[in-house]
Amino acid sequence: MASIKASIPKGTRDFGPVEMIRRNHIYDTIKSVFKKFGYQEIQTPTMENLDTLTGKYGDEGDKLIFKILNSGDYMLKADGLKQKGEELSSKNLLPLISEKALRYDLTVPFARYVVMHQNEIAFPFKRFQIQPVWRADRPQKGRYREFYQCDADVVGSNSLLNEAEFICIYDEALSKLGLTDFTIKINNRKILTGIAELIGKPSQIVDLTVAIDKLDKIGLEGVEKELLSKGFTAEDLQTLKPVILLAGSNEEKLAQLDTILEASDSGLKGIAEIREVFDYLASFKLNKAKIELDLTLARGLNYYTGCIFEVKTNEVAMGSIGGGGRYDDLTGMFGLQNLTGAGISFGADRIYDVLEELNLFPHTTQESTKVLICVFGKEEEKYALPLLASLRAQNIHAELYPFGAKIKKQMQYANDKNIPYVIVIGGDEMQSGKLTFKTMQSGTQEQLSVDEIMKKVMVS
Amino acid sequence: MASIKASIPKGTRDFGPVEMIRRNHIYDTIKSVFKKFGYQEIQTPTMENLDTLTGKYGDEGDKLIFKILNSGDYMLKADGLKQKGEELSSKNLLPLISEKALRYDLTVPFARYVVMHQNEIAFPFKRFQIQPVWRADRPQKGRYREFYQCDADVVGSNSLLNEAEFICIYDEALSKLGLTDFTIKINNRKILTGIAELIGKPSQIVDLTVAIDKLDKIGLEGVEKELLSKGFTAEDLQTLKPVILLAGSNEEKLAQLDTILEASDSGLKGIAEIREVFDYLASFKLNKAKIELDLTLARGLNYYTGCIFEVKTNEVAMGSIGGGGRYDDLTGMFGLQNLTGAGISFGADRIYDVLEELNLFPHTTQESTKVLICVFGKEEEKYALPLLASLRAQNIHAELYPFGAKIKKQMQYANDKNIPYVIVIGGDEMQSGKLTFKTMQSGTQEQLSVDEIMKKVMVS
Repeated sequence: MASIKASIPKGTRDFGPVEMIRRNHIYDTIKSVFKKFGYQEIQTPTMENLDTLTGKYGDEGDKLIFKILNSGDYMLKADGLKQKGEELSSKNLLPLISEKALRYDLTVPFARYVVMHQNEIAFPFKRFQIQPVWRADRPQKGRYREFYQCDADVVGSNSLLNEAEFICIYDEALSKLGLTDFTIKINNRKILTGIAELIGKPSQIVDLTVAIDKLDKIGLEGVEKELLSKGFTAEDLQTLKPVILLAGSNEEKLAQLDTILEASDSGLKGIAEIREVFDYLASFKLNKAKIELDLTLARGLNYYTGCIFEVKTNEVAMGSIGGGGRYDDLTGMFGLQNLTGAGISFGADRIYDVLEELNLFPHTTQESTKVLICVFGKEEEKYALPLLASLRAQNIHAELYPFGAKIKKQMQYANDKNIPYVIVIGGDEMQSGKLTFKTMQSGTQEQLSVDEIMKKVMVS
Repeated sequence: MASIKASIPKGTRDFGPVEMIRRNHIYDTIKSVFKKFGYQEIQTPTMENLDTLTGKYGDEGDKLIFKILNSGDYMLKADGLKQKGEELSSKNLLPLISEKALRYDLTVPFARYVVMHQNEIAFPFKRFQIQPVWRADRPQKGRYREFYQCDADVVGSNSLLNEAEFICIYDEALSKLGLTDFTIKINNRKILTGIAELIGKPSQIVDLTVAIDKLDKIGLEGVEKELLSKGFTAEDLQTLKPVILLAGSNEEKLAQLDTILEASDSGLKGIAEIREVFDYLASFKLNKAKIELDLTLARGLNYYTGCIFEVKTNEVAMGSIGGGGRYDDLTGMFGLQNLTGAGISFGADRIYDVLEELNLFPHTTQESTKVLICVFGKEEEKYALPLLASLRAQNIHAELYPFGAKIKKQMQYANDKNIPYVIVIGGDEMQSGKLTFKTMQSGTQEQLSVDEIMKKVMVS
C-alpha cells in the first residue's frame, strides 16, 4: 500500500489528551448542573434525512449543510435526467444522489425527536444534548466546520419559572467553572414589539435595536443620525428618545418602560414577563452572575417570541458565551402544533478559550496517571507488579513503564504525561525494600517502603 | 412552511433519557478502567479525507464508506469529464464530487493521528477513543449504520505487559458492569503460522482454524472430512491431529504445543509469548474472567501479528463482546514505519444487550431527579421555591412542577421520570409547615417539616 500524507479536512480538529480532559471538564460541569435542574440527556443521529433539515435554516443555511452521497451506484437514479436530456447540474442532481445530511444544529433534530417520540415523553420535557454539528462555512480562526453544541430546552411548559431556572443554570455552571464576573442579559420580544408598535414600524425592529446598541460608542446624536438614515422620522425619534436613553437599575428601567409602553398591550405583557422572571430569581441565590435588562438584545429575533438571553464574560474580550430564549411552535414544522418551548445554549469552544486565557483549568486532575513505576530491568519489573496491582486496587491510576528503556527516558515520559509521582526500583531498592519515591513538582526524592508509599499517594 | 413527517435514516437511532443513562453507565465504567491503566482519551474528526480511508478496508469496505458531497457547486469539477465526453458514472464522478467521508472505524484515524502528532506524543502512547463510526451496511437486527466503537491501543511498546494489562482491563471493566461468567480467549498469530508451517500450507490457515473450531459440533471425523474437502491431504491430517485434539488446561495445551511445534521457530516464539502473558497475569488478581488458550481464534488474521484476544460471555447467547490483538506497522500506511502496537475493543452495543437481558443496569441512579415538588397553586409555588433552592444547594437533583397542572398529572410526571420522592404542598401544608412527603416506590406518605425532609433525602 503506497503511503499517503496524514492530514485532516480543513475546519476540523483532533483533540489530544490534554484538550480532552479540559473539554470534558467543561461538559461535565455543565451536565452536572443540567441534571440538578431535572434536564435529561438525549442523543440524535449524526445523519438526518435531508428533507428534515432543508428549509429550516434559510437559503444560506441550506448551502452550508453537508450532504451525504447515497451509497452504491448513486448515479443510477440520474438516468431519467440523462434520458430527458436535462442538464446534470449540481442542483438537478442533488435530490437524486443525496438523501441524508449531517446535523446542522441540535434544535431541528430535537424538534424531530419530540414529534417522533411524543407518546413516550413525559411533558414538560426537559432535555439536554451535547453533540457535534457540521457546517460547510469557510473555516477561519475560531470558526470550525465541526463543533460541539451544548443545549438545554424545555417543551410543553409556558411557566416563566423555566426562564428563571435557565438563569440559575448559567450562573451555577459558569461560577463552577471559575468565572467571577459575567453578565446574563435579558430582553423580551414582546417589549421590542411594543416599541415598534409605538412608532408603527414593526418591520424595522432590527435597525432600531442595532442603532440603540451603539449609544455608548456614538452618543445620542450618532444614534439619531443612524436612525434617520434608516428611514425613521423626526417624530419617531421623539417617541423613541426615552427608549434610547433608558438607563438605571433593572427596576428603574422597567418603571420607565411602564410609562413608555403603556399604550401597547404587547409591550406591557413583555414587561410583566420580565418582572415575573425577576420575582422567581428573588427566591434563588445567584453566585456570580449579574443580570441586566438590555433592550438592544435581539438575537434570533424571528425565532424567539418571549424572553431572550445572552451571556457575556466581563473578564475577557470575547463574543457571547451563551444565549437562548422562548420560542413558540418549535415542532410545527413536523406537524405537532402549539407546543411552546424555551432553551439555552452554552458556547463551549469560547468558554474553553476564556478558561484558558484566565488560567482556570484545574492543574491537577483525577483523570491522569498519578504514579509511574520505573524499573531498571526484568527482575525489578517482576518485583514491581504486585505494587502496581495494589495501587490500582486502591483506585489509583498507575502505570509501569515496561523495562528496557533508560531511566531518563522513563522520567521524561512521566514529565510529558504530567504524572506527579514516580517510583524507581533498582537492585538496591529490591534489597532494602525501600523504594525511591520522587515527587516530580518539587523534585524531592525519598526512600520509602511500599506501605509508606501507599499511604502517601492515597491521601495526596 | 409545509410540515413533513418526522423520521430518521434507516440504520440510525435516537437515544432517549433512559438509554443515555444506561449507555453512559457502560462507557463511564470502561473509561474509568482505561484511565486507571494510564490510557488517555483522544477524539478525531467525524470527517476524514477520503484518501485517508480508501483502500484500508478492502474493496467491500470501500463501498461501505459514507462519502460526503463537496459543498457549493460540486458539479463544476465534472466539466472536464463532460467535455471529454466521458461517462458520468458513479465511479468516474466520485473523485470529482467527494473529498471527505465519515469515519469507518477508530483504528485508521488513530494511525493518522499518531503520524500527524508524533512530535507531541509521549511514547509508548496509550490512548482510548469512544466515538461513533458509520458504515453503509444493509441495516438489520443488531446491525446499525451508526454505532459506537470503544477502543484502547498502545503504540511504541513491544512489551507483553501491555497484553496482560488488556486482559486485566477486560476483567475489571466487565466485572464492574456485573458480569460474573465470561471468558477471555487468547491465541497467537505466530502459533498459527507455526501450525501452517508444519504442513507447508501457510495460506490455508483460515480454512484450518474454521474447521478445528467445529470439533465440538461435528467431532473429529467431521473436522477431518471438512479439511479433506478444503484440499488438505491425509498426511496433513495425521500431522494436524494433535492440534485438533488439543485439550486440557492452558498449561497442558502449551506443554503439548511445545512438542507439536518444536520444529517451528515461529510457533515456539508464539508459545513463549503466551507464557509470558500468563506470567504477568500471575502477579495480577483477576476478578471474574476465565482465560482460555484457543487455537481456533483467528479474528482479523491478516492484521494481527502476535497475541489475539476475544471475549465472550457465558451467561447469554451472544457473539463476542470484545476483541483485539497486536499488530505491527499500523502507521506504515501514513509513512511512519516500524511502530508496533496492540489494542482492544469493547462491543458496547452487545454489552448493552447483555446487561439488559441479565437485568444488570442499576435501578437507581445519581443521574436523574431525586425530588419533585408538586404545588396546588401560585402561592404554594412561591412557598416552595426556597425549599427547591435548598435541595439544589445540597446537590440534590430537584424539580418543581410549574403550578397549574392537576396533582394527578404531576404525580404521573414523577412516575414517568422515575423520581423516587415527591413533596406535595397545598394550603394545609403551608399553614402547618408540615409538608406531604411521598416515597413513590412504597407509596408511603408522611407529614414532615422542611428540615426533616432535607435530612431524609440527603441520606437516602
